[in-house]
Amino acid sequence: MQENKIIKLTVRDVRFPTSLEQHGSDAMHTDPDYSVAYVVLETDSDAALKGYGLTFTVGRGTEIVVCAVKALSTLVVGKTLKEIVSDFRGFYRLLSSDGQMRWVGPEKGVIQLATAAILNAVWDLWARVEGKVRNKPLKTNTFECSILLKVVCGKKNRFHTQMLKEGYPAYTTSCAWLGYTDQQLTQLCSEALAQGWTKFKVKVGADLQDDIRRCSLIRKLIGPNNTLMIDANQRWDVNEAITWVTKLAEFHPLWIEEPTCPDDVLGHASISKALAPLGIGVATGEQCHNRVMFKQFLQAAALQFVQIDSCRVGSVNENLAIILMAAKFNVPVCPHAGGVGLCELVQHLILFDYISVSASLNNRMCEYVDHLHEHFESPTIIRNAHYIPPKDPGYSCEMLEESVQKHQYPDGEVWRAIEQQGKQ
Amino acid sequence: MQENKIIKLTVRDVRFPTSLEQHGSDAMHTDPDYSVAYVVLETDSDAALKGYGLTFTVGRGTEIVVCAVKALSTLVVGKTLKEIVSDFRGFYRLLSSDGQMRWVGPEKGVIQLATAAILNAVWDLWARVEGKVRNKPLKTNTFECSILLKVVCGKKNRFHTQMLKEGYPAYTTSCAWLGYTDQQLTQLCSEALAQGWTKFKVKVGADLQDDIRRCSLIRKLIGPNNTLMIDANQRWDVNEAITWVTKLAEFHPLWIEEPTCPDDVLGHASISKALAPLGIGVATGEQCHNRVMFKQFLQAAALQFVQIDSCRVGSVNENLAIILMAAKFNVPVCPHAGGVGLCELVQHLILFDYISVSASLNNRMCEYVDHLHEHFESPTIIRNAHYIPPKDPGYSCEMLEESVQKHQYPDGEVWRAIEQQGKQ
Repeated sequence: MQENKIIKLTVRDVRFPTSLEQHGSDAMHTDPDYSVAYVVLETDSDAALKGYGLTFTVGRGTEIVVCAVKALSTLVVGKTLKEIVSDFRGFYRLLSSDGQMRWVGPEKGVIQLATAAILNAVWDLWARVEGKVRNKPLKTNTFECSILLKVVCGKKNRFHTQMLKEGYPAYTTSCAWLGYTDQQLTQLCSEALAQGWTKFKVKVGADLQDDIRRCSLIRKLIGPNNTLMIDANQRWDVNEAITWVTKLAEFHPLWIEEPTCPDDVLGHASISKALAPLGIGVATGEQCHNRVMFKQFLQAAALQFVQIDSCRVGSVNENLAIILMAAKFNVPVCPHAGGVGLCELVQHLILFDYISVSASLNNRMCEYVDHLHEHFESPTIIRNAHYIPPKDPGYSCEMLEESVQKHQYPDGEVWRAIEQQGKQ
Repeated sequence: MQENKIIKLTVRDVRFPTSLEQHGSDAMHTDPDYSVAYVVLETDSDAALKGYGLTFTVGRGTEIVVCAVKALSTLVVGKTLKEIVSDFRGFYRLLSSDGQMRWVGPEKGVIQLATAAILNAVWDLWARVEGKVRNKPLKTNTFECSILLKVVCGKKNRFHTQMLKEGYPAYTTSCAWLGYTDQQLTQLCSEALAQGWTKFKVKVGADLQDDIRRCSLIRKLIGPNNTLMIDANQRWDVNEAITWVTKLAEFHPLWIEEPTCPDDVLGHASISKALAPLGIGVATGEQCHNRVMFKQFLQAAALQFVQIDSCRVGSVNENLAIILMAAKFNVPVCPHAGGVGLCELVQHLILFDYISVSASLNNRMCEYVDHLHEHFESPTIIRNAHYIPPKDPGYSCEMLEESVQKHQYPDGEVWRAIEQQGKQ
């Protein structure tokens, strides 16, 4: 391939005012404004190829991630794609182990989110270069699927063929955010059932009586055979989690997600042990900051569902390691998605898991939330509650330039209008 | 007390070019420039009282912490000290659990370092307010010790009297940075012995033969009865750590510090178990990002020495919790210090541990590094290899304004001069 030297990195703070309508609200994040630090890599290639990447945030603090991306950019600009992918481990370590910057991580928090944004863009660029052409569906590609998938999966197999036909099973979190009224919940749930959804997640953890009422309502709506999951977003202590979830056991949730502090590995192990007799598993991962933490959770039998995230850890590189560890421990991977761009990104990873690693759909599904897809060049395609494999080259997170400009914080027109309203 | 409303927060990026002489070099941080994000809180009090706080970094990346401090400052400015300290838990949670900003942590990495800088300044302010007068030693204070210690320790006791007389035992890391030559090491070690030092730490982990030569040299210099510790700064995998340290066992180190990735709780447990028969303990903590992670290490018997850090976790608040947990698990606390300002800060915490919690000096000592103290208004006082309790009111990290201005990055005169030299 061409050298494809990266000659420029730009990063922008893009925020969507989702808190205005309580989309995404949960027990710990009561007013999220879904946001991204959005990275574009420019190259010196003949075709002026670019790489697009992002990391997800929920509003305030995005500017800190943007600052971190700028700090890391000096390690990226000037490198060629060829030298990066010929020693991708070395490049990963260069970003994560800079002798000075690693102190403010290492491999966690802001600096890890920034690393993810950059590496997501590098993977996108690599896939586009492999695909050669930009912004055109690859109609003649024998893999019949996104070039990113081809890069990670290698040869086509029967699981790949099955995915093209049926898609990967999804569940929806769109019906039951914590801030929604019972009426909203009923309406959204009924609509989702009509669209073919069979797996539903409910936010819990703020008030037990509310949770009982909401879980009862949704279980009645979806019936006994559909799947229900509950998600506390870290709200509880260990014992509180066990007591609380025991009281929701009658609604037969498949898992309790993020029952307590994401760093409390042994706490999750205690919760797992206590809830196992009730047939309820523990799911976590969206705030698990690197492969080493996932290793702790797997070794301690502290989770029964591995929720990888496309932006929390170091991009595809680190997620491949986590997917392989999960397979070794025989624990299903059920990705975290939603927010903005997370569905677009993580679909590639879970398809890789199925096609090349697990070859199983048992207890496996990928989260889906129906917000903000309209801002992407190649939005996710859901058919009959399944993710349809993307065909455009790349990592699917190129945003519409118009959307980016409108939502840039604080100067985009959306935010200027909100500021104006605040003043009135 | 007065309300003492916080009316302004300033934060500056202050860096010392320590990498020029290899001070602070270790197996993972080969070129640290000791730095701080330096916070000053201004109040509306009659006496124009200020609070001074900092968080420690090693150069690049400090600007990200500065950005995070600015983001958090909106939660601090406008609050009165009275309302903060009357519900300090609430204030701590306000900083660490902001519904939007917690996503980029939570309680880890950049945002946690920024939280520490701010809270260190709040504790400093509180102690100064309690002390009433600023910049004058409290000659008539019946506690005969810093007002910060009085705030946390409460009443004077015999352990406090003992500390005033003897001081708290320290060990030195100044003699054997990885980048020092054998000649430097020999000279520094001989000088330290002459000054009364009895406990020495050596950096290891880059090259086994080098380590054997260096440990052999220092053990010969200090003799069989003085204490030797070794520190790998996370360089190894788990099995590599066990093999490597086993080969250094003949030099009888008391502990191996940071043998592997700071997130690998169960890895540290394996190392602890393997090295116990050799009489070598595992020490870690300087990159352990919060109380919940320390809980994992204690519950898993993954360390035998708890190395608290004054800036990595959420200031005094979180360190008190860690000190109490360590006491419950009967594990000695041996603070991490050095860098810039860490000795000044952490001496207060280890004195609290002795005076009010552990009441034991068995296997306990506080790190000391003899760099950069000259930039502080109230530098640490070491007498016969012991920390002498500070008497000035506050948390001892007010810097000389002249030093701050000279070392501001990138515009201070020290950095402008280095840039000039680079161009020549």
